[in-house]
Amino acid sequence: MRAEEMLQLLEAIKAGQVAPAEALSRLQPAVADLGYATVDLDRKSRCGFPEVIFCEGKTAEWTAGVVQRLADAGQDCLGTRVSDEQAAHLARLFPHAEQDRLARTFWLPASREPRPTQGTVCVFTAGTGDLPVAQEAVVTARCLGAAVELIADVGVAGIHRILRHRDRLRTADCAVVVAGMDGALPSVVGGLSDGPVIAVPTSIGYGAAFNGVAPLLTMLNACSANVMVVNIDSGFKAGYCAALIARRAARV
Amino acid sequence: MRAEEMLQLLEAIKAGQVAPAEALSRLQPAVADLGYATVDLDRKSRCGFPEVIFCEGKTAEWTAGVVQRLADAGQDCLGTRVSDEQAAHLARLFPHAEQDRLARTFWLPASREPRPTQGTVCVFTAGTGDLPVAQEAVVTARCLGAAVELIADVGVAGIHRILRHRDRLRTADCAVVVAGMDGALPSVVGGLSDGPVIAVPTSIGYGAAFNGVAPLLTMLNACSANVMVVNIDSGFKAGYCAALIARRAARV
Amino acid sequence: MRAEEMLQLLEAIKAGQVAPAEALSRLQPAVADLGYATVDLDRKSRCGFPEVIFCEGKTAEWTAGVVQRLADAGQDCLGTRVSDEQAAHLARLFPHAEQDRLARTFWLPASREPRPTQGTVCVFTAGTGDLPVAQEAVVTARCLGAAVELIADVGVAGIHRILRHRDRLRTADCAVVVAGMDGALPSVVGGLSDGPVIAVPTSIGYGAAFNGVAPLLTMLNACSANVMVVNIDSGFKAGYCAALIARRAARV
Amino acid sequence: MRAEEMLQLLEAIKAGQVAPAEALSRLQPAVADLGYATVDLDRKSRCGFPEVIFCEGKTAEWTAGVVQRLADAGQDCLGTRVSDEQAAHLARLFPHAEQDRLARTFWLPASREPRPTQGTVCVFTAGTGDLPVAQEAVVTARCLGAAVELIADVGVAGIHRILRHRDRLRTADCAVVVAGMDGALPSVVGGLSDGPVIAVPTSIGYGAAFNGVAPLLTMLNACSANVMVVNIDSGFKAGYCAALIARRAARV
Amino acid sequence: MRAEEMLQLLEAIKAGQVAPAEALSRLQPAVADLGYATVDLDRKSRCGFPEVIFCEGKTAEWTAGVVQRLADAGQDCLGTRVSDEQAAHLARLFPHAEQDRLARTFWLPASREPRPTQGTVCVFTAGTGDLPVAQEAVVTARCLGAAVELIADVGVAGIHRILRHRDRLRTADCAVVVAGMDGALPSVVGGLSDGPVIAVPTSIGYGAAFNGVAPLLTMLNACSANVMVVNIDSGFKAGYCAALIARRAARV
Amino acid sequence: MRAEEMLQLLEAIKAGQVAPAEALSRLQPAVADLGYATVDLDRKSRCGFPEVIFCEGKTAEWTAGVVQRLADAGQDCLGTRVSDEQAAHLARLFPHAEQDRLARTFWLPASREPRPTQGTVCVFTAGTGDLPVAQEAVVTARCLGAAVELIADVGVAGIHRILRHRDRLRTADCAVVVAGMDGALPSVVGGLSDGPVIAVPTSIGYGAAFNGVAPLLTMLNACSANVMVVNIDSGFKAGYCAALIARRAARV
Amino acid sequence: MRAEEMLQLLEAIKAGQVAPAEALSRLQPAVADLGYATVDLDRKSRCGFPEVIFCEGKTAEWTAGVVQRLADAGQDCLGTRVSDEQAAHLARLFPHAEQDRLARTFWLPASREPRPTQGTVCVFTAGTGDLPVAQEAVVTARCLGAAVELIADVGVAGIHRILRHRDRLRTADCAVVVAGMDGALPSVVGGLSDGPVIAVPTSIGYGAAFNGVAPLLTMLNACSANVMVVNIDSGFKAGYCAALIARRAARV
Amino acid sequence: MRAEEMLQLLEAIKAGQVAPAEALSRLQPAVADLGYATVDLDRKSRCGFPEVIFCEGKTAEWTAGVVQRLADAGQDCLGTRVSDEQAAHLARLFPHAEQDRLARTFWLPASREPRPTQGTVCVFTAGTGDLPVAQEAVVTARCLGAAVELIADVGVAGIHRILRHRDRLRTADCAVVVAGMDGALPSVVGGLSDGPVIAVPTSIGYGAAFNGVAPLLTMLNACSANVMVVNIDSGFKAGYCAALIARRAARV
Repeated sequence: MRAEEMLQLLEAIKAGQVAPAEALSRLQPAVADLGYATVDLDRKSRCGFPEVIFCEGKTAEWTAGVVQRLADAGQDCLGTRVSDEQAAHLARLFPHAEQDRLARTFWLPASREPRPTQGTVCVFTAGTGDLPVAQEAVVTARCLGAAVELIADVGVAGIHRILRHRDRLRTADCAVVVAGMDGALPSVVGGLSDGPVIAVPTSIGYGAAFNGVAPLLTMLNACSANVMVVNIDSGFKAGYCAALIARRAARV
Repeated sequence: MRAEEMLQLLEAIKAGQVAPAEALSRLQPAVADLGYATVDLDRKSRCGFPEVIFCEGKTAEWTAGVVQRLADAGQDCLGTRVSDEQAAHLARLFPHAEQDRLARTFWLPASREPRPTQGTVCVFTAGTGDLPVAQEAVVTARCLGAAVELIADVGVAGIHRILRHRDRLRTADCAVVVAGMDGALPSVVGGLSDGPVIAVPTSIGYGAAFNGVAPLLTMLNACSANVMVVNIDSGFKAGYCAALIARRAARV
Repeated sequence: MRAEEMLQLLEAIKAGQVAPAEALSRLQPAVADLGYATVDLDRKSRCGFPEVIFCEGKTAEWTAGVVQRLADAGQDCLGTRVSDEQAAHLARLFPHAEQDRLARTFWLPASREPRPTQGTVCVFTAGTGDLPVAQEAVVTARCLGAAVELIADVGVAGIHRILRHRDRLRTADCAVVVAGMDGALPSVVGGLSDGPVIAVPTSIGYGAAFNGVAPLLTMLNACSANVMVVNIDSGFKAGYCAALIARRAARV
Repeated sequence: MRAEEMLQLLEAIKAGQVAPAEALSRLQPAVADLGYATVDLDRKSRCGFPEVIFCEGKTAEWTAGVVQRLADAGQDCLGTRVSDEQAAHLARLFPHAEQDRLARTFWLPASREPRPTQGTVCVFTAGTGDLPVAQEAVVTARCLGAAVELIADVGVAGIHRILRHRDRLRTADCAVVVAGMDGALPSVVGGLSDGPVIAVPTSIGYGAAFNGVAPLLTMLNACSANVMVVNIDSGFKAGYCAALIARRAARV
Repeated sequence: MRAEEMLQLLEAIKAGQVAPAEALSRLQPAVADLGYATVDLDRKSRCGFPEVIFCEGKTAEWTAGVVQRLADAGQDCLGTRVSDEQAAHLARLFPHAEQDRLARTFWLPASREPRPTQGTVCVFTAGTGDLPVAQEAVVTARCLGAAVELIADVGVAGIHRILRHRDRLRTADCAVVVAGMDGALPSVVGGLSDGPVIAVPTSIGYGAAFNGVAPLLTMLNACSANVMVVNIDSGFKAGYCAALIARRAARV
Repeated sequence: MRAEEMLQLLEAIKAGQVAPAEALSRLQPAVADLGYATVDLDRKSRCGFPEVIFCEGKTAEWTAGVVQRLADAGQDCLGTRVSDEQAAHLARLFPHAEQDRLARTFWLPASREPRPTQGTVCVFTAGTGDLPVAQEAVVTARCLGAAVELIADVGVAGIHRILRHRDRLRTADCAVVVAGMDGALPSVVGGLSDGPVIAVPTSIGYGAAFNGVAPLLTMLNACSANVMVVNIDSGFKAGYCAALIARRAARV
Repeated sequence: MRAEEMLQLLEAIKAGQVAPAEALSRLQPAVADLGYATVDLDRKSRCGFPEVIFCEGKTAEWTAGVVQRLADAGQDCLGTRVSDEQAAHLARLFPHAEQDRLARTFWLPASREPRPTQGTVCVFTAGTGDLPVAQEAVVTARCLGAAVELIADVGVAGIHRILRHRDRLRTADCAVVVAGMDGALPSVVGGLSDGPVIAVPTSIGYGAAFNGVAPLLTMLNACSANVMVVNIDSGFKAGYCAALIARRAARV
Repeated sequence: MRAEEMLQLLEAIKAGQVAPAEALSRLQPAVADLGYATVDLDRKSRCGFPEVIFCEGKTAEWTAGVVQRLADAGQDCLGTRVSDEQAAHLARLFPHAEQDRLARTFWLPASREPRPTQGTVCVFTAGTGDLPVAQEAVVTARCLGAAVELIADVGVAGIHRILRHRDRLRTADCAVVVAGMDGALPSVVGGLSDGPVIAVPTSIGYGAAFNGVAPLLTMLNACSANVMVVNIDSGFKAGYCAALIARRAARV
């Protein structure tokens, strides 16, 4: 809350228009305290999308507890990196949720009604093995409201494969490029596009790929100026950011 | 060029509407071959902004040669990481260019007429020492057409310093956060914003900061989903991408 | 033993007040030689707490052997990183011991009588997945005599979650902050506190988290001056040091 | 501010006992906005010591500006990593300040009156070359109010050198151990002490010392449980934390 | 396609000698779009050998799908890093293919007729444990048409073992040297040969071998000028490049 | 010497056809012992080119001493990484030698007569700043007898720049690709060529380029199978190997 | 063979005292070529101990094949890093061999007769978990003929534990110190001894121990001058070198 | 002091044969406390050679102070890594000392009388640039009493260069091998010798040599079992250990 807003609120207290307890709740955003988790129920109003559950390192029970709490609050619930065990547990408790086992995601929207899409995102992969990460980006971006297209296996060893898709690049509000090994594709895509490109290094490869370090460094050093990078294998962040950008582009 | 467009062009040749030489120039984007450089004169039409000159590792003469060639082509010319020697050399040859020695940039617009801004970018720094990198982001984003605001030294050790600026975050189309050492600021900014955040690690710090590796890793692992990262000290890329995002958001 | 004390002892030998063999035992601290282990029975008098058993890399038999020897010497016995196999083996031999499977600890106090607590420690985690490490800190600090409070999942993406607990920070003698991924929480906690903060990086996360290297570097570079760091996943050391600090603070 | 305090304040507004503007200033801690720096004037009340100026990467003018602002606010002013150029500039502007060129510190206390010391800190170095870092710890701890003793060059290659000082370890509230190369000294000191030990790796050494990485890793893995670590060459943080611990121990 | 060729083609359209659709297909190399893969059917004509399938990270079905598509196009099909599961699946579908389980390769030539070899390659290993990687090189080079000889376990600890084979070095068109641990063999082989040497570091070894990093660095720093390096464990690339070199040497 | 040859020689001794001293000199290759250097005078006959002098870390006198010894032996003499001081010293002593200050090479051929070239090499750079390394490759390959062409600044951000040169790729016997930063160019070049490609990472770039580590990893992981790698900034090795390959290709 | 010896041999051929074939076999040391291995049968005469079999990465059959070949040649046979599967296979084929499953060694002496020991070695471990590596050193040194004593768990956290054994240090010809985690013990042992100390880092520990990197670096930087280092977990090399040193010391 | 000795001493006190003060001095080894240094005057009797001064990071005055103190105690004084400034300062104060500027050593023996040598050491270098490090080994080993021979530039690219010196290897008590870049020479030397080999990696090289990391790893992974390693560029430690080994071998 910025100074002017806060002063306005305090003046309203003085004027008797707002009760102190009510003002307090506005000054302190809502959380749900589950003991093992402090669920940020204010995230949606602050960030435009509710807290997303990173399922790794959580028990199936903890995961389900947070899902339940978000659902109770009437918020969309997205979970990522859902293990097989968690997936089965969640499927029993939330049979209507959408689970994508390639992307390892869990999606329980607050409402089943279709929503209009906001902007378009285009997701490219350098190889076939990058598909699970790319699919995480696809699912995430769709949950945030973007229209998403996925184009697989257009790495630079056959440069004509990506050149065929230049028109798609031009019409997308944001491109996501998923690549392991040499991680060279985002540099090329960046040079063909007038929009922002989000590069996702993957742990595909062996030896000096160092579980994604090699493409991570490549992408951080991309010779095209419009390339940004997210964590290794983080299809989630790429899809999230791409959807935010597309949403803004489609805003007006 | 996509298949349908290309086929159209080829049909036009057949129909005698387009001369083969003319078609050839459309199929092969323009370059200027200077021996030591192959200037990409097509970049502007393809990417929305001309080739930017990375001055490190170039002689002053090479740098000036590329500047001249872009100017001759009637294109804006932005140079980054301009050394003192290069700056002096360029100042003699291009006295009307704008040079910012804090940002180490060179800017020679194709036209001196003011241009309308497209979208707004907000640049934050964690510390005072991050200012040179931040200023490179500021200059770059302005050259690309964004309205830019710079807010310095609001690192998380005094968390109220960034909380004061939440309203600015809400109105900006894109935030850039520049930080060295622990690189923690983007995570906090991300959690206060509903838009994309571009994090720039800097080489400020000592010991286990490892010339920017520490904040780079922090930012790649930011717990806020809307944080993307660019190379260490790359104020340039952050400003470039932020301006592209702002431009799209302001497009309609 | 310092020079004056030693001289005093030697004078006492000369004076016939102390037998040479007795003096020898004072000059050479006690150990128990088990072949596979040289148990430091003097640790308690020297360091204020007996030797703690690091169970990793030991057979269940070796582990039990050291436990038995400490118990025989009438000393408290704490074991950490107890594997499932070791836990089962120890449970059979020492049914009265307390085992915490989340923390993976074994605790066999020399006496079952309750002891007064000495000082207070507050343990925070950034995420739910950090709980096993945090719990190791909790158990360890309690074994050393501190009163401990645990507050989970207050990472900086929802900054209000930690701000709610500022009063607890002020009353604790020492704070422990457990975080993986970006490891940003200790910097923020440090800036809200006038006491020492012990940061524990965890191996929670993926990709560029590099099994805890990312938060380790973040914490070593924390912009708050009152942050110290222990090894990745070392809830044990954090709890141990925090209890020592709390004990001193509560000493008088 | 915790919830109860905040509610009390809001009730006081309602009761007309506190003006909204006054309440606002209590809710938003003070900063001084210098353009290139946002000085945290609330740090002293929140953290028990004012903001310390990290001088690296700042111009001499920026440094002096922050010093002046803290002095104007009647707060102690400590600067670290002061370059020769900054030192000369500051000496001209603040001739009464204490500068230590071995420690590279600047100290301008708010008042020249002597203060009672709070607790004792003992700083050890493994070698002579570690002295500049140790001296930074000494100066910092003294500025925070501790009585400090410095013992140099007692590395483990001659183990009797440290054994001579066991009595000092027992009487200090906190030990700081500064070591480069193998960084083995803190492990030994930890095993001789019943208090907390803060280890500072230094960049002294060559080859596989990797500018302090080797002793940093050694210290993070110290086999003694009471060893915490700060950044490479960070005498500042070690002195700061040690003084905080000593202050608490001496509190009552 | 270079400018002159392209102009020729365009002139031919104009002259009515080539139909636009035909020209289009010449300008855009062929791909097969399988959804999960974009198979580069032009690779053979462009690079002299068809696309090779890297099987890691692919499902058995995806792998088989690409194999089928290449076979349908009448092209040789080589697969590498074939898992046991993939091998069994492929064996059922393509019983005539040659699978080498030491090399983990799959080979389905377009024609069963024997082909004349083109040039000779000699593959050396430093140890017995390097054999799987070496065998991948052997199979690959043979698929590309080279005559290959394999000589195992001639590491430098018994330097006479490699000296015995100097005559083979002189007659081979290209040498491949496979080594883990110290990776010293390529330096020695390079000093005994007047031809190119391709070094392959392997992940054989332990501790500071760091899964092949040690021999990788050794080989990149080989004191013999004629040593080139490929990725850790990449027998495939070494065999591929060696065969290309041998083919050129045998060309005339 | 292989077994049969050696046996033949021994039989010749027995037959009195070869004197033992003469046989000894055949069994032990020639060296020149200068105290500070053991010059390998047999290198030329064994490896096809004399020992090349790596000048870094040598005094100017040592460097000149080795040059003189090779010249005395009637062998070509190539020096690399010649410092300014060494260059001046050598220029005084060997005024007829060719020195290239961009490549930092020294070249004193045994004979001034022109030699026929053997095969062709094509050297590409991604950027202008890669030119010094590329020039070292050019000079080296020419000294070994290749015809060399240099094409600068055709990085992948403007992909059409390299596509223009596909015909040159087809006619060269070997391609060398020099690139810093993302190091993506060799992957693309490899996909356009049916010959071997030698990739040279350069230390051009900043931040996460890590002085050439980023492009080194990119190139080791190149998705094109025909890419081999040499040490960072080693234009020398690339040129040397390329010339060897070209020489073999041109042999017949 | 040195020049004079070789000349002597050649003169002997000339004089008819040695047949050329016989001379050849002296000039070329013996190997046994098994296809998958080139066994160095000359190692014993050259290095004083036969080739040792590194069993990792070999099939059980390959391992047994080499054992058999060495046994056939009448040489001692030592194998290290023997897996459970290999151990069982070897036990069936060589029931008289000694296998130590803690050390993971296989020992089949050429003769069962007891041999006199040559020199003494003392092996220390910092912790109990270091025992498997220490035992590999013990077995190896014994196979090479040394008298070996093993003293476990005398790490520096209880410094008196190692001080008790100073007399053993003085009488041993060589000390081996095995330690993980902080790796501090060799520095202390070195400072108490006038003989050579061989330090063995182990992969015991967690987090920033980085599988032995931390103690490796500590040991390379040991502040005691008489400390040498071998690979992580290489009890084998430490035992081998220690026995060689002890053998020399006992030689006369 | 071991238990029996200590008991004996204590009994002697009781018997009035030894005064307590005298006994105290025997129990506590001598040091000289200079404030900036705690000189270990007992090192010579404990370790067989006095404390050696590591001059890096010390002022010239500090260095001279320690030299003077050792000289006053009648002990040999060796200094290493002496800077030009320190060398000049020491030369003025100790004109009779021997300084070697290639090795950067200072040597002031307690007596000028010649001493008999004890054992022989052979130092090899792979290249000419390794000479400064090798010379530090030579000087150090000589100061400790060994007869030392230096053989330069016998790297493995010309393998016959080292093969010429096999006889020297056989007669030396210990070999030191100094190498940068690929660090391959110790593996070869180890395979030709029946004695211990001490490998010294140097920072000679560029790019992926990483200032000595590459040869360090090579040497730690040496395929010859008799190779031990010291720190990068540590000619000092290699010479020290080699002399200790040679001394033992020559002892009887």
